[in-house]
Amino acid sequence: MISSSVARLSQLSLRRAVSRHHVYATQITIHGIRSYAVKVSRNPDFGTITSPILQQFASVLSTPQTSLISTIPSERKEWNTVEESELDSYNKDWMGKYIGRSKCVIRPKTTNEVAQIMRICYEHRLAVVPQGGNTGLVGGSVPVFDEVVLNLSSLNQIRSFDATSGTLVCDAGCILETLDDFVAKEGYMMPLDLGAKGSCHIGGNVASNAGGLRFLRYGSLHGTVLGLEVVLPNGDILPGLQTLRKDNTGLDLKQLFIGSEGSLGIITGVAIATPKRPTSVNVAMFAVESFEAVKTTYQRVRQHCAEILSAFEFIDQQSFDLVLKNTSRKPRDPFEERYPMYVLIETSGSNQEHDESKLQGLLEDLMESSIISNGVVAQDETQIKALWSLRESVPESLGHYGKVYKYDVSLPMDKMYELVHILQDRVIGSGMMPSANEPGRVKAVCGYGHFGDGNLHINVVAENYAADIENVIEPYIYEKVQEMSGSISAEHGLGVMKPDKIGYTKDPLSVHYMKQIKRLFDPQDIMNPYKAI
Amino acid sequence: MISSSVARLSQLSLRRAVSRHHVYATQITIHGIRSYAVKVSRNPDFGTITSPILQQFASVLSTPQTSLISTIPSERKEWNTVEESELDSYNKDWMGKYIGRSKCVIRPKTTNEVAQIMRICYEHRLAVVPQGGNTGLVGGSVPVFDEVVLNLSSLNQIRSFDATSGTLVCDAGCILETLDDFVAKEGYMMPLDLGAKGSCHIGGNVASNAGGLRFLRYGSLHGTVLGLEVVLPNGDILPGLQTLRKDNTGLDLKQLFIGSEGSLGIITGVAIATPKRPTSVNVAMFAVESFEAVKTTYQRVRQHCAEILSAFEFIDQQSFDLVLKNTSRKPRDPFEERYPMYVLIETSGSNQEHDESKLQGLLEDLMESSIISNGVVAQDETQIKALWSLRESVPESLGHYGKVYKYDVSLPMDKMYELVHILQDRVIGSGMMPSANEPGRVKAVCGYGHFGDGNLHINVVAENYAADIENVIEPYIYEKVQEMSGSISAEHGLGVMKPDKIGYTKDPLSVHYMKQIKRLFDPQDIMNPYKAI
Repeated sequence: MISSSVARLSQLSLRRAVSRHHVYATQITIHGIRSYAVKVSRNPDFGTITSPILQQFASVLSTPQTSLISTIPSERKEWNTVEESELDSYNKDWMGKYIGRSKCVIRPKTTNEVAQIMRICYEHRLAVVPQGGNTGLVGGSVPVFDEVVLNLSSLNQIRSFDATSGTLVCDAGCILETLDDFVAKEGYMMPLDLGAKGSCHIGGNVASNAGGLRFLRYGSLHGTVLGLEVVLPNGDILPGLQTLRKDNTGLDLKQLFIGSEGSLGIITGVAIATPKRPTSVNVAMFAVESFEAVKTTYQRVRQHCAEILSAFEFIDQQSFDLVLKNTSRKPRDPFEERYPMYVLIETSGSNQEHDESKLQGLLEDLMESSIISNGVVAQDETQIKALWSLRESVPESLGHYGKVYKYDVSLPMDKMYELVHILQDRVIGSGMMPSANEPGRVKAVCGYGHFGDGNLHINVVAENYAADIENVIEPYIYEKVQEMSGSISAEHGLGVMKPDKIGYTKDPLSVHYMKQIKRLFDPQDIMNPYKAI
Repeated sequence: MISSSVARLSQLSLRRAVSRHHVYATQITIHGIRSYAVKVSRNPDFGTITSPILQQFASVLSTPQTSLISTIPSERKEWNTVEESELDSYNKDWMGKYIGRSKCVIRPKTTNEVAQIMRICYEHRLAVVPQGGNTGLVGGSVPVFDEVVLNLSSLNQIRSFDATSGTLVCDAGCILETLDDFVAKEGYMMPLDLGAKGSCHIGGNVASNAGGLRFLRYGSLHGTVLGLEVVLPNGDILPGLQTLRKDNTGLDLKQLFIGSEGSLGIITGVAIATPKRPTSVNVAMFAVESFEAVKTTYQRVRQHCAEILSAFEFIDQQSFDLVLKNTSRKPRDPFEERYPMYVLIETSGSNQEHDESKLQGLLEDLMESSIISNGVVAQDETQIKALWSLRESVPESLGHYGKVYKYDVSLPMDKMYELVHILQDRVIGSGMMPSANEPGRVKAVCGYGHFGDGNLHINVVAENYAADIENVIEPYIYEKVQEMSGSISAEHGLGVMKPDKIGYTKDPLSVHYMKQIKRLFDPQDIMNPYKAI
């Protein structure tokens, strides 16, 4: 049945939206966070910070009174002595979920300062946590115990930009949005975009191999990062800030540091290829009858919008219902009835008229072939934001509905949604779902995510966090992801949250070689311990 | 001055060229190859092939009579005994430049056979050369001495293709063109294209991190390869054939094998993301007054054709002149006069009308702003081929003109052509260029290449190959590339040709870690010895 809102589509007059920055939905809700207890002990081989070591640190910093902060008193005011609580913003992640007890935060201003600090840490076998914008979701950027926090926020200079090639070279502590604004002036954009762009650092993006929304179009950082400067645990500087697109001379070492989560060294400089900034952006939302129809829609979208497609997201009915019911902003349903699945697409191109024409062709095809049941296209910037908001509000609305068990997995695109059904069956089998007689302890098992990247966010909403509920889900969900050849961490990394789960995605031999490489670069195991590798 | 051929541009009627496959120019001319002598000695620690070892090999192969070939006699016909000359095609590279003396070629049919063969080689410390299509330009795929040749051509099955995501999984010995034809049926294309596509293997492409012509659009294999299956030197199988776009669980080991030139293990399986196949292809050639104008043209091309640009090549006047004079096909000059620089662009998109309109807008802009002096646009498939042929004929025409010293370098795009001037000055200073009194021993120093990738092919054409000419060029050219922060091997790798030159591009610390990683995977140093790492 073609509803009235579909009819509207044939008279579209799309509007160009030149420089829309939508906010990427955070994947962990702040409401109702689970308490987290680290199940490891402090490594007794690690040194402990002392006043003489702080003096050593101070001696290699150009402005130790501002760059060196510690709870240990400094008699001659060689560093900034503070109360323990004043280190909270460095010791806790932004969610307050992971909390360390470091007594010392260092904010070096140059790569050489980082190198000299690392040399001292290496000498005393002090464990170190590299910290960028501290926006991660797996506790990778805060100490677990008393590790030295090496915060990169003062290493924040743009080193160069080549307007011919679009190659940017900058310090690791530069904020992603600052960089995006900078290259925008020359008609370029950063090849990645994520909700935390206003505070995350490019160094942290690279260290965690951030994915985000532009991934579908501009690909992985493994392809766009051209060079890295890295300070190794012993203080040596790996000077690999090359700006070349092609360089086949030996092993590509920088690739190891992309996604290494701070386990091998400290990224201090980044060279990255930036694509041309689009001058035309359009957003549409479609309602379809099944996940099969989502897949068919994706094929048609790629056919019509091939080179301009920049996002293809999906939301299932349960998630969509909760967005309409439980979001503080009370969004309007763009459709007149509910459908099993929703798809949001975005196009980014260089020619408004062409992009609108491609979208028009797509819509006619989708409607004539009855692949979609309904659809709307944003006609101005406000409508673009409204449609994106429906997708971005999913995590928040689930959080309003109950306590959320969140999983960020990658799966082969073709069978992505199967996992939701499998997990629903599991929870129904456990007797925890609502029935005629009982309200049920689990309220919903739903899925949404970046379909175009094969990245499913699968969420279980329950009345509370409880061991028996968790035991129904875990390790079952990890086992199923493994059976389906998926990844238990699509884009968030392992951090301190799930280093012990790596075996569900990686084979023992690969993990063995990862550990060997870790040992090669970090023989004292001082880099970001208790975490990813 | 706007010439008459520019006026033609305003009445363009572009024609769609759906499935054009142009042949990528080979970078080494076959005419007048330099003789090459390996300056290394055989590692005496390596074992030597014997009849009992061949029996071991035979015992693990399903069809040893065809898969195992050796000059050592087999009494019971357990393997195929041949004359030495019958191993020529395995012992020599396609140019006949690098010649080894292996007595044993193995063509396994499965990953398990590769693993068992490697286990035997490891046990006897036999050096091994992995061999794909044997199409490389630096001698990486042929033995230097008597290494066992492990030829992958019988490991050539497509394992799976996911038409939803465009993910292909195949054996390493699949031929690139075969794969491209296969995915074409589903509307996809391989993300790389090169002249040797009819014989090169995907495994060799990955092992040498092949660049080629689609690089500008689809990026590096580091971004498009999703998973690799690798047999390690000791016979262990690293089973990393994941098909996921996003997977952040530990170090991304597969990246190490991309571009490792067979030094760490044998790639037996490849999972790769394939982009949608374009349905509209256009080609144009512009004549400009300077390299500065090439750069300005590039900016405008990216502005107008952003998402559809698929190639941006340049040719200098000397190279262009030689193409017109010295090519067997005697191509027609598309312009009525000569210009200092020529640019060839290609667009690939999904909508013929839109692409033509974008190109039209570009041409009007380029002409009105007088950035280009002249320009032509191919109006049919024949003209597309003719324009590409002008670019592709450069190596051949230089070879007809004299003996060619060829260098494949990457440089920051902005100062790419400076190196040609620097080398010209050097040769003039040496007194080898023609003067009023003497004909000169060097005939030309010219440049052309993949501008969009910062990849310059800089060539010196001389009357002959001679030590004094080479001494004028080398190591001077490598030193200059180093000063300009370039790479001495943009896309061809190091192979046996220039492993000792790595220091011009990579710092000693990086080389140290490369060697450590090599040792980690290949403690006996049996993988492709005397080469890249």
